[in-house]
Amino acid sequence: MSQTVARTRPRTKAAAARKFVYDFEEGNAEMRGLLGGKGAGVAEMTRAGLPVPPGFTITTEACLAYLQKGTFPEGMMEEVRAHLQKLEAAAGRRFGDPKDPLLVSVRSGAAFSMPGMMDTVLNLGLNETTLEGLARTTGDLRFARDAYRRFVQMYGRIVLGIEGELFDEELEAAKRRQGVKTDAELDPPSLEQLASTYRAIIERRTGNPFPEEPWEQLTGAIAAVFSSWNGKRAIAYREYNHIPHTLGTAVNVQAMVFGNMGEDSGTGVAFTRDPSTGERRLYGEYLLNAQGEDVVAGIRTPQPIATLESSLPTVYRQFQEIAERLERHYRDVQDMEFTIERGKLYMLQTRTGKRTAAAAVKIAVDMVDEGLITREEALSRVEPEQVDHLLHRAIDPGAEVKVLAQGLAASPGAATGSAVFDADRAEEMAKKGQRSILVRIETNPDDVHGMIAAEGVLTSRGGRTSHAAVVARGMGKPCVAGCDGIRVDLEKRRFVADGVTVKEGDLITIDGTTGRVIQGSVPMVEAGVSGDLEKLLKMADQVRRLRIFANADTPEDARRAREFGAQGIGLCRTEHMFMQQERLPHVQAMILAQDAAARREALNQLLPFQRDDFLGILEAMQGLPVIIRLIDPPLHEFLPSHDDLLEEVTRLRALKKSGKKLQRAERLLAAVEELREQNPMLGLRGCRLGLLFPEIIEMQVRAIAEAASQLRQRRVRAIPEIMVPLVGHAEELRRSRLVIEATLKQVAKEQGVRFETKIGTMIEVPRAALTAGAIAEHAQFFSFGTNDLTQMTFGVSRDDAEGKFLRRYVDDGILPANPFEHLDPEGVGRLMGLAVQEGRGTRPDLEVGICGEHGGDAQSIAICERLGLDYVSSSPFRVPGARLAAAQARLAESRSKDV
Amino acid sequence: MSQTVARTRPRTKAAAARKFVYDFEEGNAEMRGLLGGKGAGVAEMTRAGLPVPPGFTITTEACLAYLQKGTFPEGMMEEVRAHLQKLEAAAGRRFGDPKDPLLVSVRSGAAFSMPGMMDTVLNLGLNETTLEGLARTTGDLRFARDAYRRFVQMYGRIVLGIEGELFDEELEAAKRRQGVKTDAELDPPSLEQLASTYRAIIERRTGNPFPEEPWEQLTGAIAAVFSSWNGKRAIAYREYNHIPHTLGTAVNVQAMVFGNMGEDSGTGVAFTRDPSTGERRLYGEYLLNAQGEDVVAGIRTPQPIATLESSLPTVYRQFQEIAERLERHYRDVQDMEFTIERGKLYMLQTRTGKRTAAAAVKIAVDMVDEGLITREEALSRVEPEQVDHLLHRAIDPGAEVKVLAQGLAASPGAATGSAVFDADRAEEMAKKGQRSILVRIETNPDDVHGMIAAEGVLTSRGGRTSHAAVVARGMGKPCVAGCDGIRVDLEKRRFVADGVTVKEGDLITIDGTTGRVIQGSVPMVEAGVSGDLEKLLKMADQVRRLRIFANADTPEDARRAREFGAQGIGLCRTEHMFMQQERLPHVQAMILAQDAAARREALNQLLPFQRDDFLGILEAMQGLPVIIRLIDPPLHEFLPSHDDLLEEVTRLRALKKSGKKLQRAERLLAAVEELREQNPMLGLRGCRLGLLFPEIIEMQVRAIAEAASQLRQRRVRAIPEIMVPLVGHAEELRRSRLVIEATLKQVAKEQGVRFETKIGTMIEVPRAALTAGAIAEHAQFFSFGTNDLTQMTFGVSRDDAEGKFLRRYVDDGILPANPFEHLDPEGVGRLMGLAVQEGRGTRPDLEVGICGEHGGDAQSIAICERLGLDYVSSSPFRVPGARLAAAQARLAESRSKDV
Repeated sequence: MSQTVARTRPRTKAAAARKFVYDFEEGNAEMRGLLGGKGAGVAEMTRAGLPVPPGFTITTEACLAYLQKGTFPEGMMEEVRAHLQKLEAAAGRRFGDPKDPLLVSVRSGAAFSMPGMMDTVLNLGLNETTLEGLARTTGDLRFARDAYRRFVQMYGRIVLGIEGELFDEELEAAKRRQGVKTDAELDPPSLEQLASTYRAIIERRTGNPFPEEPWEQLTGAIAAVFSSWNGKRAIAYREYNHIPHTLGTAVNVQAMVFGNMGEDSGTGVAFTRDPSTGERRLYGEYLLNAQGEDVVAGIRTPQPIATLESSLPTVYRQFQEIAERLERHYRDVQDMEFTIERGKLYMLQTRTGKRTAAAAVKIAVDMVDEGLITREEALSRVEPEQVDHLLHRAIDPGAEVKVLAQGLAASPGAATGSAVFDADRAEEMAKKGQRSILVRIETNPDDVHGMIAAEGVLTSRGGRTSHAAVVARGMGKPCVAGCDGIRVDLEKRRFVADGVTVKEGDLITIDGTTGRVIQGSVPMVEAGVSGDLEKLLKMADQVRRLRIFANADTPEDARRAREFGAQGIGLCRTEHMFMQQERLPHVQAMILAQDAAARREALNQLLPFQRDDFLGILEAMQGLPVIIRLIDPPLHEFLPSHDDLLEEVTRLRALKKSGKKLQRAERLLAAVEELREQNPMLGLRGCRLGLLFPEIIEMQVRAIAEAASQLRQRRVRAIPEIMVPLVGHAEELRRSRLVIEATLKQVAKEQGVRFETKIGTMIEVPRAALTAGAIAEHAQFFSFGTNDLTQMTFGVSRDDAEGKFLRRYVDDGILPANPFEHLDPEGVGRLMGLAVQEGRGTRPDLEVGICGEHGGDAQSIAICERLGLDYVSSSPFRVPGARLAAAQARLAESRSKDV
Repeated sequence: MSQTVARTRPRTKAAAARKFVYDFEEGNAEMRGLLGGKGAGVAEMTRAGLPVPPGFTITTEACLAYLQKGTFPEGMMEEVRAHLQKLEAAAGRRFGDPKDPLLVSVRSGAAFSMPGMMDTVLNLGLNETTLEGLARTTGDLRFARDAYRRFVQMYGRIVLGIEGELFDEELEAAKRRQGVKTDAELDPPSLEQLASTYRAIIERRTGNPFPEEPWEQLTGAIAAVFSSWNGKRAIAYREYNHIPHTLGTAVNVQAMVFGNMGEDSGTGVAFTRDPSTGERRLYGEYLLNAQGEDVVAGIRTPQPIATLESSLPTVYRQFQEIAERLERHYRDVQDMEFTIERGKLYMLQTRTGKRTAAAAVKIAVDMVDEGLITREEALSRVEPEQVDHLLHRAIDPGAEVKVLAQGLAASPGAATGSAVFDADRAEEMAKKGQRSILVRIETNPDDVHGMIAAEGVLTSRGGRTSHAAVVARGMGKPCVAGCDGIRVDLEKRRFVADGVTVKEGDLITIDGTTGRVIQGSVPMVEAGVSGDLEKLLKMADQVRRLRIFANADTPEDARRAREFGAQGIGLCRTEHMFMQQERLPHVQAMILAQDAAARREALNQLLPFQRDDFLGILEAMQGLPVIIRLIDPPLHEFLPSHDDLLEEVTRLRALKKSGKKLQRAERLLAAVEELREQNPMLGLRGCRLGLLFPEIIEMQVRAIAEAASQLRQRRVRAIPEIMVPLVGHAEELRRSRLVIEATLKQVAKEQGVRFETKIGTMIEVPRAALTAGAIAEHAQFFSFGTNDLTQMTFGVSRDDAEGKFLRRYVDDGILPANPFEHLDPEGVGRLMGLAVQEGRGTRPDLEVGICGEHGGDAQSIAICERLGLDYVSSSPFRVPGARLAAAQARLAESRSKDV
């Protein structure tokens, strides 16, 4: 982007007759390179016919010339003088006029907003003489003296580079002397004395008296703005953000206007539409006979903008008209600052107005109806994340809350309930109709019934892919995970956070959208898909190319996903089904089986459960594809925790207990030890399990095939597809496929039906992407498992890293973003691109999608669109946002192709 | 390869006048596609002028035509008959002649050696009549009857496809009837009866009488060979090995010769040079008046080949001459089978002779001296692995051993000693001058003094990168790791394997080259670099392009590496230095430090140790580069084991103990818990540590810089280079580099010297390879850490997988090889290629090497040569083998470029 801007500046440095100064009327929004962002913005407002206080901009070229030679380029100050004269004429005041002086603001403004550069000097042109004129015209001596005192201070600090503390100390001393507490109470004599002390400081530090002469003030301010381009912090900021040092900054000089010149003056802010609801009406507030500072100081209460109609009807009508013109000009809601000086309205600033998610949707849809913007523009006006938030209950943005701790935003939405510390207790409360929040260090399959019963889940350990997070997201329940700011004491049934002890039964609120843990209950904003959202999403559907699938493991999730507009299930995990309490014993028997026969016996017990699972999901999604992933996690995840067993065995042995209990624990511990791995993520899981124990695959495929066949008999169109996880070598897939196909054939024969079931694979191991051409020979579809692919490509375990170095990495800017939230385009994205290209090279009709967490993230969806994927699959609640993001990605992609 | 062979067959299937049969004189070694491997080989021998029993080959084309139509192609059998007549003339016998019958062997022979196809039918042409002639000419009725009995059995089983058990049962019955134990004791009447029973079986099973007519036998055998191409096992084998089904097999028909036709007949085997020592003399043995079976049966003791000179001087001279001619023709040592029939020498087979490592080296060097082969050829005659073995003591190949269990070959060489079960005991024994083998479940830093004291290490758990394996390789000590066939009971100080209990003090031998654990002591072959090896490696040095570096962490290792020819240290791990006992407390204090000041204090304690380490290594390698890798492993590796602490705490709590011991244990457990990770390989380690705790890098870099500066003052040329591990994003390297450079500058200033220290990075995370262009902006060199790169690219944790599914994967052929032993060219190799290309795109003089275990593996070195790496780095003992492998790789690479 920086390059583009750089190019808009003329290339020849030695242009014969250069123009260094532009009146606001001469510029426009396109001239950012030459006039800087601020200069171009105010020029655009002027161009739009708004009553903007007049002024001019000195170009970035002048700045560069100054920095090169150390002096202003020839002729520049002459131009400034000429433009100043025009400014005097426009403002009807003269610079340095003791009776009614023209005062100006001087601001830096580069092509990019850049902290570290000189900001703003207000009221330039004030001195001991002109302040009297200001006092007269405003009728407010105190205001004039204070304006002068502040100007001297600002000029000293910003333009002359004197440490601000020196001025601050004197200000404190003055208040002590006068015996008052706030700046506002200082009386004119104190302010006069203060200005005089400030000038003395300046003379002492710089060796020169304070420049009382306005022209000299202006010259100094311009030079200071230019020099601030090469300030230490500015250079560091550019280095960090890769902004070229060769751009330079412009200087904006603008007439000051005053809202405190009587009851026909005033100041205020307003939106063209209501930023909370999106309703089309002026929304804002103002104060008569006041300056901006008065609004900030909060001494007087501002009035709603509508009342301006009665107090200053002409101004109000003018303002209404301007507001409408601004909306038309910028084609979006505007957030405006204005000042009325003696009955004359001045627009000081206008910018795109921030709005709530609900307002964003309504405004976008309304503006299409009004013919103000196109459907494509409407789609770009709402962030997909805003859509996500609309679908979850949220804490009222206006509510005051006591935040106890900050954890990971692991599953969105907010919930309030009594803190409980075990799953059974949550269940008991639910039976009594009471709401609870389940608080645990971590969760495991034994806690699932408690998670179902509770309103939300809070854990002190684990990342966004921890058991708690994944299961909560699946259930659509709020979850805050890895909240290391709370110290959980399960035995004493309480936790401590920020010095507060929360005992069982105490009310807490969690906000899974932001990760906050809040004391007590707070007002909420309910969720829902409004008619406007419906309309917007329909527009998105007409534009997007990507299909939107959902990740769902239960019929309820599948139904919800379908209601939200999912066109299929992109990831149906089969192992969460194993975690349910009534099945776990069979799963454990299967794992602990000593031979294939015993394993098969245990699997036979599981078959009916698994078949029922598939029946439900396939029926809910009838007519749409359901991609079912075969078992993926390492087997020890289904067994009790190693540490618990070790503790139990050690305790029993220490107490010299023997007997069945110890034996049982020892046997289980030995089995867990056997399966234990140093790096389970890279261990015996995924298709590796199925290749070692084909019986497991056979059972799962049989369950799928039998379910599909039962539905077929009931004339329900079930479209299961089978996905093999963690393939790294084509041969793994080829052999898995043999087992799957044999089982499908067998069931088809038994049931007397014909199946055509697609078989595909996850691409989640880097090697799979690197050998996608060979793998595609055995796969009808690819689904990128970008969680694991990111972990392996970065060599980063998400659960371990997210609470530790990864947060630091993002905070310190080592990584531009958390790659588990937004797909990494250079590394992971490159592998994906390779896989798409080479997979389709082998099999042109290969279907390619993504089913990692990234499937619901707008930035990632944009990458998927660019790579030509066929679909993205996200959790059900993210489906609506994904529909919008896919449309936006499509539009961006067509634009980039047009260029 | 299959493609090449396929192409050598003529493309037009309907050639006008096709020739289906070739005399051995007509073919040559190039005609594998048409004549099969065996046919081409025997033709080549004939062409070389050797007295080969005459015969002919029926082409693969004939086979394909037969398979297509189900009948022999027109004219084929006429050709066979014509060639058979020529054969009769050459052999001086006629087919079916009752007096002196021509007998033939019929063998299949495809372009590739292929189990699952018909193998060999001997003595075809025998029947009740001709066997009488054979009896007469050999003077051995029993031999003739037995030959016939065997022929009928072989024909029945192989040609007619009758289950072998039917014949075996009858054979057993015959022995029972005659009351003998071995086949050799069966007398002519029994044999006659057996043949008759066999014929009856055949008639019953096939519905046709056994074909007594020789021509019919031959026709049947040819058809059977052709059909065997489409046998179930043959097809499966081809599928598995990706051999096209369209190749077909040839049929070889060859005259039988007999060594049992009197005292002027005989049979034997011989090498052209001594295969144990390489000495240039005929080496082998023979038996007069005997067939090959007699040698195998071991009833008579064969004579050394030299005695043939006195028994049959003419034949001996002829054989000597042939042996020399064969060596000249094939330009390598030949392993020959011969038969003398009535004073006439027949060569039955010659093939390249297998030889010991020592012989291979001597023969290669001698043959160059003799002008027989070029230096380039000599280099290809020795396997780099053989060089590795020459450098380690080995178990005498002739020794009889009782193998108790098989583990992983984790560090080469063999050692004998008393089994001991803890490190202290090993040290005690060493002090008394007694040898021990340290047996543990796993080892950790506490065991290192025991590993130093013991002769070798045996563990029941852990892979080739386990602590035991890595440390043992570093020490050059034999190690067998992950030997799950032994059940270690540390408390009772014993292990059980294969039903044998080995108690402390019992002698055992471990073979780290093969992974065997052997009972008792066994004879050994000592190691050493011979003068011949020296010569060969010098030749290699002249040819190779790749530089050979070594991985070494101690001055001793560095010196050894240099003696073996290392041109630098490619990987000096700094963390093994931390593991030493006197340093561990400081390391632990550093880890447990609550703030940077405390951490810095502990690091100050470590600084002198670390500086001394570097002093030693840099001095040992003076004038050569030493690449030092900054700390890499996760910090918990330096702390006591979590499980041990958990047990201790649980025990103390169960016994209601309190006090300091429990407190200390609890505190330590909490600290370990804090650092514990679910997947430590993907956790807080490598450069991530240094970015979080820059003090650690500062200390390490200071130690390096101070050591280099001290040496500089002593005029020792130290060339340290600094390597940053586990970089995945360019920004990680850029920031690490800032810390390193600042420290180098600081030390340079303090010491008043100037450094130019190269700074580079490991490429061991897939993302680093994928973004190598950006990373190269901050790296002067890349070093591929292919252990981790393989783990992450495959998504496989080596330690977890090697004992579990990875072995199964390789055994079952899911993976062509263990990717931790031989670099995976498609996945990991592709990433490396990308990184080399794009890294050099950014920085053309980027040095690129490899320092994973693959650096010492010949196949992997070939890939490194192809990718244009600058060096490979291996463990010191693998340096000589790597020198050879690099030369071989270079030669292969030039050849492939010539083509």
